[in-house]
Amino acid sequence: MTRLLAPLRRTLLRRTPRLAAAQRTLHLSPSLHRSPSTPVTPASAPPPVGTAAPGSVDGFTGEKIVRGADIDPSQLVIEKTKSPKTIPPASQLVFGLLCIPWNSQKGWGTPKIQPYGPLNLDPSSTVLHYAPTLFEGLKAYKGKDGVPRLFRPDKNMERMNRSAARLAFPTFTGEHLTTLIKKLVEIDADWVPTEPGTSLYIRPTMIGTQAGLGVGASTDVLLFVICSPVGPYYSTGFKPVKLYATTKDVRAWPGGTGGYKLGSNYAAGVVPQQQAAALGYQQILWLFGPEHRLTEVGTMNLFASFSSPSSSSSGIEIVTPPLEDMILPGVTRDSILSLLRDHASGKKKLEGLPENLTVSERNMTMGDIVKAEKEGTLLEMFGSGTAAIVSPIDGIGYEDRLIKVPVGSDGLGDIARVMLREIIGRQTGEIPSEWSVTVDS
Amino acid sequence: MTRLLAPLRRTLLRRTPRLAAAQRTLHLSPSLHRSPSTPVTPASAPPPVGTAAPGSVDGFTGEKIVRGADIDPSQLVIEKTKSPKTIPPASQLVFGLLCIPWNSQKGWGTPKIQPYGPLNLDPSSTVLHYAPTLFEGLKAYKGKDGVPRLFRPDKNMERMNRSAARLAFPTFTGEHLTTLIKKLVEIDADWVPTEPGTSLYIRPTMIGTQAGLGVGASTDVLLFVICSPVGPYYSTGFKPVKLYATTKDVRAWPGGTGGYKLGSNYAAGVVPQQQAAALGYQQILWLFGPEHRLTEVGTMNLFASFSSPSSSSSGIEIVTPPLEDMILPGVTRDSILSLLRDHASGKKKLEGLPENLTVSERNMTMGDIVKAEKEGTLLEMFGSGTAAIVSPIDGIGYEDRLIKVPVGSDGLGDIARVMLREIIGRQTGEIPSEWSVTVDS
Repeated sequence: MTRLLAPLRRTLLRRTPRLAAAQRTLHLSPSLHRSPSTPVTPASAPPPVGTAAPGSVDGFTGEKIVRGADIDPSQLVIEKTKSPKTIPPASQLVFGLLCIPWNSQKGWGTPKIQPYGPLNLDPSSTVLHYAPTLFEGLKAYKGKDGVPRLFRPDKNMERMNRSAARLAFPTFTGEHLTTLIKKLVEIDADWVPTEPGTSLYIRPTMIGTQAGLGVGASTDVLLFVICSPVGPYYSTGFKPVKLYATTKDVRAWPGGTGGYKLGSNYAAGVVPQQQAAALGYQQILWLFGPEHRLTEVGTMNLFASFSSPSSSSSGIEIVTPPLEDMILPGVTRDSILSLLRDHASGKKKLEGLPENLTVSERNMTMGDIVKAEKEGTLLEMFGSGTAAIVSPIDGIGYEDRLIKVPVGSDGLGDIARVMLREIIGRQTGEIPSEWSVTVDS
Repeated sequence: MTRLLAPLRRTLLRRTPRLAAAQRTLHLSPSLHRSPSTPVTPASAPPPVGTAAPGSVDGFTGEKIVRGADIDPSQLVIEKTKSPKTIPPASQLVFGLLCIPWNSQKGWGTPKIQPYGPLNLDPSSTVLHYAPTLFEGLKAYKGKDGVPRLFRPDKNMERMNRSAARLAFPTFTGEHLTTLIKKLVEIDADWVPTEPGTSLYIRPTMIGTQAGLGVGASTDVLLFVICSPVGPYYSTGFKPVKLYATTKDVRAWPGGTGGYKLGSNYAAGVVPQQQAAALGYQQILWLFGPEHRLTEVGTMNLFASFSSPSSSSSGIEIVTPPLEDMILPGVTRDSILSLLRDHASGKKKLEGLPENLTVSERNMTMGDIVKAEKEGTLLEMFGSGTAAIVSPIDGIGYEDRLIKVPVGSDGLGDIARVMLREIIGRQTGEIPSEWSVTVDS
């Protein structure tokens, strides 16, 4: 909370005495807000935020990571929509809305699944002014057995808790939210599409809902989850994308929030994306630093593969930039790295991948890409994310020219093609995997 | 719009056919979204965004800055609250809420002043997921004549339009919104407090309200304005603040959005602020770069003054960091610079300021501050902003020690004291100034 807006906050709080009490507890305790005349002992830099596991004690504040009551799935209230008994046509789909409120004094409240409808937010809600919002994206897939499956929901829950800590939001036990998401999917199970490539997109979101214009930790937070069926991403075949490598706008930086899935990382990307589109490109390639390091593609992680410059060697290196707290730790990125490393180590060989494969998390610069194109060692590039799994790249607009990136006749590179097959197999349950979590109704 | 979420967008849009039509128009026109097979001619970097004046033509897209209908104050609808005939006690204050909707096809809609109450937002509204939100802060002050006055609203309107362009939001004619804000203040005029130092805080806000999870320019935007009376900031005298100079978290970056008043600049500051508070500091001092350049203080701009190291010289230099598209262009910052420059040039001398004054917009590093403290040439430091006007600083925690900054016996430095007097005088109308805009009822 900024002291500067304290008078305003005091005034606004006159209108909401309960919030005032909550705030005094959370913000204005003497230990947190000593008067300026109290002697100050500068300490070393605070420890990193959001790395502690839920349920443990925060190394900085000494408080439990789960503040107040944890999310309790056993308290779930389900309020079904009164109208539709049969599945409505696609144009009228009305899905459930899972809401779990949190208050700094009471902790997590009763989870409720209710018919989809608008949220009532006070015009001074913090989310509308200072953008405390985070989200996740995951999908439910139906296999041939008709059972919906989530793909690695534990990774989403882990990242969501990490984002929450970064916003001074409450954290929670990930398994409890997964249980509730399963319940939501179960209720809407008939609406999870069954055609190959289709899925139910699930969007967990957390927003600061405290009424009041002070800049500080929100005393009230709403966690909600919405769903939407999505069609096959590549219904008309694989169309590789061309990227515009911007040297003007910067997505993230050291000491910023690029490594967290916060809403605030996305608003600023819209205008650069419009500018790239107007130049005929589908996505932005985000660069960083004077050496133009490659970081991310639009809202995806990035992979590139290179052959050895020496023709005598048959080795191939696949590279993705290291996270370094600037790059989003994508679940698909992690899955691809894991599959490729198991292949490279011999733990689990995958058909179609080169025998001699090196998997690297390392920085690469636009200079490296230009050089590899020139030497003919640039083999393929693709973005990775929940929406497309892999999105092949066939060109990069950079400093007045177009760098050409090879793709196969099916629009895919060799590694992207195998990754797509292996990940879809695990998502639908055709390839048995601990990554696939069934929703049993 | 990211192509990756296109299927999801298509699906969601099935539920809202009118939005689908709007989106096709805004996003999916062939000129913006060529198919990947269209030949691409890389161009040079796009021109800077948001610098064009409202009503002119955007240098990049060639479209008019005001898309569709402009804000039209003559269309204002006022729906007064049905209950209170007399001014309610402070604990029950219910102010007006000015709302102006915008749609990409229709432009700006009918402005409406209605009783304060919650906004109904679809759970998939863009603002809740990707944080497209911007805001302004200004105040109405009552002078001895009882007339409410706005302070430099044209500067807020100019900055608001600049922020809007940065989010691909619609812009508007600033005078039109000022007219409507005056009307709002006029209606609530009895509730503008009259005691010295009090004012009515006015918060114009713009949020993306389009329903749909695609990342792109919002086809629907809501501009709303809320108000709240604020008490005297320095009711108990001037208490200088101690700053914590963080070397870990970074507020803004070249190519980022630090120079725009976007909500997304604020969410990430809450945890660093909590950490500073836990160490006994009131505000964060945001640094930048390996040389630890000083940039901003919490949510304020920063000023520091230095005497000449040579005792023979009587000159004083007052310094604020240059904007460089990373620092918020504060209205109070601009007002202070203007007053100081007029004094320095002899255009308008101000009593109490040193005769020989140099006004500099230049970078200063923590090394400069440490050196000046050691040499005894650091005279004063203060933050500037709408809430406090000036906020004196008496210490900075930096790398394991506390740098002491001088303050006068009244808690203010010499320059801050004069700035406070001059700005309050203009805000209340006691000092005639074109900066003061009366709200005549």
